[in-house]
Amino acid sequence: MDKIEVLDTSLRDGAQGEGIAFSLQDKLAVVRSLDELGVAWIEAGNPGSNPKDADFFALAGSLKLEQAKLCAFGPTKKPGGKAADDPQLQNLLAADTPGVVIFGKSWDLHVAEVLRVSLEENLAMIGETIAFLVSRGRDVFFDAEHFFDGWKANAAYALAAVQTAREAGAFRIVLCDTNGGSFPKEIAAGVEAAAACLGLAGKEAAGEAGRPGPAAAGTAGPFLLGIHTHNDAGLAVAASIAAVEAGCRHVQGTLVGFGERCGNACLAALLPSLCLKMGFSCLPRGKLDRISEITRRVAEIANVSVPGDMPYVGSSAFSHKGGMHSDGVLKVRRSFEHIDPSLVGNNRHLLMSEVGGRSAIAERVKKIDPSITREHPVVAHLAKKLKTMEASGWAFEGADASFELLVRRELGRYKPLFTILAYRVMSEHPTGASIACSHAWAKVWVDGQDEIAAAEGDGPVNALDGALRRALLRFYPELEHVRLTDYKVRVIDGRAATAAKVRVLIESTDGPNSWTTLGVSEDIIDASRAALVDSIEFKLIGDIERKFKACL
Amino acid sequence: MDKIEVLDTSLRDGAQGEGIAFSLQDKLAVVRSLDELGVAWIEAGNPGSNPKDADFFALAGSLKLEQAKLCAFGPTKKPGGKAADDPQLQNLLAADTPGVVIFGKSWDLHVAEVLRVSLEENLAMIGETIAFLVSRGRDVFFDAEHFFDGWKANAAYALAAVQTAREAGAFRIVLCDTNGGSFPKEIAAGVEAAAACLGLAGKEAAGEAGRPGPAAAGTAGPFLLGIHTHNDAGLAVAASIAAVEAGCRHVQGTLVGFGERCGNACLAALLPSLCLKMGFSCLPRGKLDRISEITRRVAEIANVSVPGDMPYVGSSAFSHKGGMHSDGVLKVRRSFEHIDPSLVGNNRHLLMSEVGGRSAIAERVKKIDPSITREHPVVAHLAKKLKTMEASGWAFEGADASFELLVRRELGRYKPLFTILAYRVMSEHPTGASIACSHAWAKVWVDGQDEIAAAEGDGPVNALDGALRRALLRFYPELEHVRLTDYKVRVIDGRAATAAKVRVLIESTDGPNSWTTLGVSEDIIDASRAALVDSIEFKLIGDIERKFKACL
Repeated sequence: MDKIEVLDTSLRDGAQGEGIAFSLQDKLAVVRSLDELGVAWIEAGNPGSNPKDADFFALAGSLKLEQAKLCAFGPTKKPGGKAADDPQLQNLLAADTPGVVIFGKSWDLHVAEVLRVSLEENLAMIGETIAFLVSRGRDVFFDAEHFFDGWKANAAYALAAVQTAREAGAFRIVLCDTNGGSFPKEIAAGVEAAAACLGLAGKEAAGEAGRPGPAAAGTAGPFLLGIHTHNDAGLAVAASIAAVEAGCRHVQGTLVGFGERCGNACLAALLPSLCLKMGFSCLPRGKLDRISEITRRVAEIANVSVPGDMPYVGSSAFSHKGGMHSDGVLKVRRSFEHIDPSLVGNNRHLLMSEVGGRSAIAERVKKIDPSITREHPVVAHLAKKLKTMEASGWAFEGADASFELLVRRELGRYKPLFTILAYRVMSEHPTGASIACSHAWAKVWVDGQDEIAAAEGDGPVNALDGALRRALLRFYPELEHVRLTDYKVRVIDGRAATAAKVRVLIESTDGPNSWTTLGVSEDIIDASRAALVDSIEFKLIGDIERKFKACL
Repeated sequence: MDKIEVLDTSLRDGAQGEGIAFSLQDKLAVVRSLDELGVAWIEAGNPGSNPKDADFFALAGSLKLEQAKLCAFGPTKKPGGKAADDPQLQNLLAADTPGVVIFGKSWDLHVAEVLRVSLEENLAMIGETIAFLVSRGRDVFFDAEHFFDGWKANAAYALAAVQTAREAGAFRIVLCDTNGGSFPKEIAAGVEAAAACLGLAGKEAAGEAGRPGPAAAGTAGPFLLGIHTHNDAGLAVAASIAAVEAGCRHVQGTLVGFGERCGNACLAALLPSLCLKMGFSCLPRGKLDRISEITRRVAEIANVSVPGDMPYVGSSAFSHKGGMHSDGVLKVRRSFEHIDPSLVGNNRHLLMSEVGGRSAIAERVKKIDPSITREHPVVAHLAKKLKTMEASGWAFEGADASFELLVRRELGRYKPLFTILAYRVMSEHPTGASIACSHAWAKVWVDGQDEIAAAEGDGPVNALDGALRRALLRFYPELEHVRLTDYKVRVIDGRAATAAKVRVLIESTDGPNSWTTLGVSEDIIDASRAALVDSIEFKLIGDIERKFKACL
């Protein structure tokens, strides 16, 4: 099976999407998720553009990745000076990644009017930058910015830029439709022209017999031609497919599709077509059916929602509403489904029935009690309950720990370890002489005894968390080591504004383990309380089970 | 200029999208909006399927439409009986529309396993149904359901269905990719096969010399071949373009893109490409630049949001965040824009962000004081200030109103219109007998007078908003009409969890205008307070300026 190499740029081009901003923890979580999916390369940021990306690369070296390799992204060297002295290139080397992506101009308009250097100078900048990085042992990708617009305006120059990069030792040349306005036919023609100019043709373009050229310094195999598209005319996925048909064997995009302006090619929509309809191998075996889950997780980290109608992975992608469609699909699956949804880890939804998701639930229940099969009545009961809860805003996708507690309650393998008798949270301005703006007290009950404690905090949830934890510490000293590592709030129905329902996700850790819990309420304090309680219970129950198993 | 006829099916196929439901009033409002845009045909419902659609058609006759004609949608007659006696066809005639769309099977699998009649019987059903409706003076469209899957499975039969419809007098034959899984290349090949089978070729397929055949009964000109695609592989727009290239001159879709499963071809993404990039005329002159506005209006009626990154019409479609992009687009528009946004009635946005530059700031300052250029010291000062604020978590990219207030403060064009003397917000559990979990009071000072007010709320922010607004109402009665329409919370650095900084974005409206403001703090209540204060000040200052300008 022919291979296609995948590069995800959620953390770089994706982060240029309006409303997208990653914390350092978010970036690490995205890298881990993409590695789990099995993409080959992760373009993780521009270490020269902001200190946050530099901090990330300093930490990234210690990540244990199974599959993916990281690359840092930056521009060609400044005009005039030497590559070795260029501070941007020093930043790229300092990032210490196996791959470096260099973007350079291939449209004469940009060289003359944006960069404002001569056409020759620009080619020299491309060549020297790449040769320098190759000499320092990097696998160098060349992103030919605006290649297709450039090719339409001045084909010879666009091709010269590409050829210069190849001769300097770039091991991937990625043709970019930076403005996203090209049609698939134009993309195919541009790819064919680039392949011909590089002396690749047919299978050669696909890397099966890449010309030696100056040896690529790093780890990866033969030279590949790549494609990077944007969705400004709604054609990013189609354009990527056309490029692959024309010989590209490296594709770039973002898993959820977000990115500058209208976004990048959405990998969640593209990869299933490449694998299932064109017969390519893009991800390691057994990973494609994780794509729905991981796309939703990355969206959750980015604090955006996956549109219900997103191809392949959206929650409505296999929803049948029309009666004739539901009826048809029950008679013959393919009568109204272009693929089997389980191939991408998605589920069919018959909008009036309760059939959805039962296998997925059974899978999860088995982790707690391996004796329970798909046919056990508790599975049906959970499916029904989940449906009701989802209708009122509970989405367990990102909250495994809360889901496990739900299952335990249904299985009767749960006993509340504490009760909150009462709490009060106050925020005030101006603050009293020696108290923070937000403060709280909480009173708990454990096994016939009660305890009250108070805390101040940076915000009401922090104060409540402090008070609750202090009150419980007398009974459960192991809570000393638990801390919250992430806190996310999502408004479920924006229209009702501050009176809308909110979904709170809390990530906690005790050092070796971390887990995520969920709360939903119209009141953010109440939703946070629910997520905090789940977080504490999950920790306590887990400890008890571990102790119990250790005794066996 | 070659013409393409547009049919919008938001009210029929669109209404089969998950979460889409139109009231009778909604349907009338959508029809008026689509007519204003100038689409040729509106497929408005299935009068046989539900009473609401029948009621709609009873009312629709009295609509004064400038451009669009309505059509009703229904299946071929039942097997066996006569067309004239078929109750579904009677419903279609009773709808009294100039056009009738009949959908019929063209995939042998569906005939045998879903419809469960013989292949011959199905052809007879198609032919008799169409001939009957033509004899009653209707313009009959034939939607060849699953044409492309059928053509791949049994080409001769799929083409026989199409030919039967044409011979019976259908004046449009619409090839449907009902399951949405076909590639643009397959679509093009299928269209070419259908055109050849119908004896159309090249320009003929485009309707410029439609064969006479049995005369079309109604009003519209020569026979046209049409295309109807779905987005299950993210290719609906590309497939429609491929079909047009292969000879189709009638396109179907929904303006916002919603529809069964992953939606229909999104006309807001398709029509600008057909007009601006392929040179077709799809809408009456002067209408294309209404498409952003009307798409947003139809989405509003359908109670869905237009994704910011929707091609051409989304609010981020021409947003530039990266500094190099902002800088480039100000030097040469087309350096980072595939079309001029005004052609589709959209606007460029230079986002204020850590990756943005000084040019973006100068652009925005000019809107408040046109005399200020990029070189004015206030611009450099603002750039520096913005960098410091962003380092501590302020991100103005979604918050135009707060950015404008910041600029006004720097320019000295700002005077505080009120002061919050004190507030207290409380959330408690269990709640007292007759008070909500969250409640608040706030005391304000305006021009030497003070006022205190209290409110309960669904959550602490909702309570504080209520108390603040009530206290100010005595001084600023115009605040009565302001309401919050969206509320977003983002944790800036997840590592510190509930003690992390939060960024609150609030969207407000007073009816004609809406604006977004921002607050950042370690305390969510304090951040919300800052965003609420900005929202109120922006409204009050705007009103004062409008009154002032009206006096000039």
